Amino acid sequence: MPKRYLMAPGPTPVPPAVLAAGAQPVIHHRGPDFRVLMRRCLDRLHDVCRTRSDVLLFTASGSGAFESAVVNLLSPGDRVLAVSAGAFGERWAQLAAAYGADVHDLTYEWGETPRPEDVRARLDETGAEVVFLVHSETSTGVVADVAALARVAREAGALTVVDAVSSLGAVPVETDAWGLDVVVSGSQKALMTPPGLSLVTVSEAAWARSATAANPRFYLDWTRLRDSLETGTTPFTPAVSLVVALDTALGLLLEEGLENAFARHAALGRACREGAKAMGLELFSPDEERSAVVTAILTPDGVDARELVLALRDRFGITVAGGHEELASRLFRIGHIGYFDVFDITTALVAVEELLAERGAEIERGRAASRALEAYDEAVRV
Amino acid sequence: MPKRYLMAPGPTPVPPAVLAAGAQPVIHHRGPDFRVLMRRCLDRLHDVCRTRSDVLLFTASGSGAFESAVVNLLSPGDRVLAVSAGAFGERWAQLAAAYGADVHDLTYEWGETPRPEDVRARLDETGAEVVFLVHSETSTGVVADVAALARVAREAGALTVVDAVSSLGAVPVETDAWGLDVVVSGSQKALMTPPGLSLVTVSEAAWARSATAANPRFYLDWTRLRDSLETGTTPFTPAVSLVVALDTALGLLLEEGLENAFARHAALGRACREGAKAMGLELFSPDEERSAVVTAILTPDGVDARELVLALRDRFGITVAGGHEELASRLFRIGHIGYFDVFDITTALVAVEELLAERGAEIERGRAASRALEAYDEAVRV
Repeated sequence: MPKRYLMAPGPTPVPPAVLAAGAQPVIHHRGPDFRVLMRRCLDRLHDVCRTRSDVLLFTASGSGAFESAVVNLLSPGDRVLAVSAGAFGERWAQLAAAYGADVHDLTYEWGETPRPEDVRARLDETGAEVVFLVHSETSTGVVADVAALARVAREAGALTVVDAVSSLGAVPVETDAWGLDVVVSGSQKALMTPPGLSLVTVSEAAWARSATAANPRFYLDWTRLRDSLETGTTPFTPAVSLVVALDTALGLLLEEGLENAFARHAALGRACREGAKAMGLELFSPDEERSAVVTAILTPDGVDARELVLALRDRFGITVAGGHEELASRLFRIGHIGYFDVFDITTALVAVEELLAERGAEIERGRAASRALEAYDEAVRV
Repeated sequence: MPKRYLMAPGPTPVPPAVLAAGAQPVIHHRGPDFRVLMRRCLDRLHDVCRTRSDVLLFTASGSGAFESAVVNLLSPGDRVLAVSAGAFGERWAQLAAAYGADVHDLTYEWGETPRPEDVRARLDETGAEVVFLVHSETSTGVVADVAALARVAREAGALTVVDAVSSLGAVPVETDAWGLDVVVSGSQKALMTPPGLSLVTVSEAAWARSATAANPRFYLDWTRLRDSLETGTTPFTPAVSLVVALDTALGLLLEEGLENAFARHAALGRACREGAKAMGLELFSPDEERSAVVTAILTPDGVDARELVLALRDRFGITVAGGHEELASRLFRIGHIGYFDVFDITTALVAVEELLAERGAEIERGRAASRALEAYDEAVRV
């Protein structure tokens, strides 16, 4: 009965209380118990998203919720700008193109951080009316400065749609204060719930645009869902057990306090980066405060990251993520989103250290774990 | 700590072993544990659907899976026939219309059973290329003779899309033997799993049609999902915990044996109808073998069904369903789908009897439960 360690950037470990909540007998989605549950869950999502706008909860993966933004905001031929610096930015460009949008891109090398001045320039050039941003690009570990990017979008008169799937609950997402029109997230990252639910926030401007958007929609239609949620239920049978689980997890998160959760994630990121550096490894993620969600690390010369990822899993039961495409042979990623503490980080680091040493890599041994603990302590003390 | 009795026609009670399976720690959807799980789950779904065609599993409500049939099979302007004798038939007509289909209907009074000769005549008149059928219309309790309806569709050269959300696992669904092109179902009815997963089967003819269908799609795209499932995972993060639960539930169902499950459901339906009749109540569902999913019953004169449904819930913790729209004041529905035995039926009946007697209805007292048990025994002995 080997223990398993889920350290991929999603799905993430689910607290026992949340697993237990989801295992309660199923209740009917049209009854009063569910209405109370759904209303509390939506209230908590408002708090976590820091918005007074509508929050809509879908039974779907995060990609389904993102698609809802495309079909509710766009008509075929609408000009959009997709800002991409990794796998998810590329996915949203493909998605918008599948619905006939006139997709312009602002594409960076994977691992780069999008710059506000580039977004401004591309919006001026293209006249795009909607801009798709990725907050935390889990394929690279980069967390963008969405506040700054959204500001230039607003100045250019474009709506912003933000992929906050892996960022919401881990790093600040100030939906209203930053003027984000649509924030998309999922249950399975920092919200510490099994996958299967996803959400969007919808600003007044986004509602206004949706009224004339011509793309066809039914299951992902915002208006139908809002009208039903206002009565405490959903138009289609929701994943009731996951709503119970999510509500419980949101309660835990708000009990910890959002600012404390952000500080914890920042400290976990710092611990992971400092531990990796102490071993002599090169970081792929930026070595900065915002890299609080997932840490992407390059393997030393001669060690294939794909083999390292498999060995971590097969030898130690530790699931981390590899790199995509051309980065696959060099990159591995340690997620620290949601129900994580510093000993999850030290576990990952000492396992990596052991396997790298076995493979003859030139690394510094015996320092990673203590340096991670030290960095974590420094970070939380600030 | 009052006990609750979920006797609505979905979501349905989930066996404890299935709840427990869904509460295990979340596993990663790109790892080998998940591949083994997903392949076994799909194999079991093939057995339950009785098909060699592809089975595709979505993280979505049943309506999402139904929408996948519309967007993967149709282009705007395609002629379709929607056969409707209740709430769900109407929903599928709306859904097809939302995607620009040229929707023709064959509409019956709620509670009627669709007739093959009518389908043949409407197909001849309209030249519809795809026909949407509802197998078990949960708003009325009618289970259609889908084998016969699909036969006339095939003779007319139309593809059949069958809503088997509440029928699959409760009554025979012979996907291949009946020549059903697309069967749509959900996790939360006779498959005894919490809601949040849904499935479609896709015949060769349906695949051929999907290759030229022009409706836009991404999250609900069949090809993307099939290609990913062939490698044992999904294109978007699936509801991992629900897949574990579904796999466990399918194991229980196949262990019971599909034919035994069908016989049990038929006997439960018989018991419910006989018990209701023994009280002197009038059935709305047809009093026949196929009415094995949900029993719709009319209240006696002077008793408002809405009030009865509320009283069952508030007094006894029993959730049954009411009737839709104009039937709301007269109809209530007892579901007996999935994890049900005859004592669930007697519980519902004695509670109804008690409340009707309190309301001064002219009913026969003290006979419903024993007659239900007797009818169940007769049915299972055959």
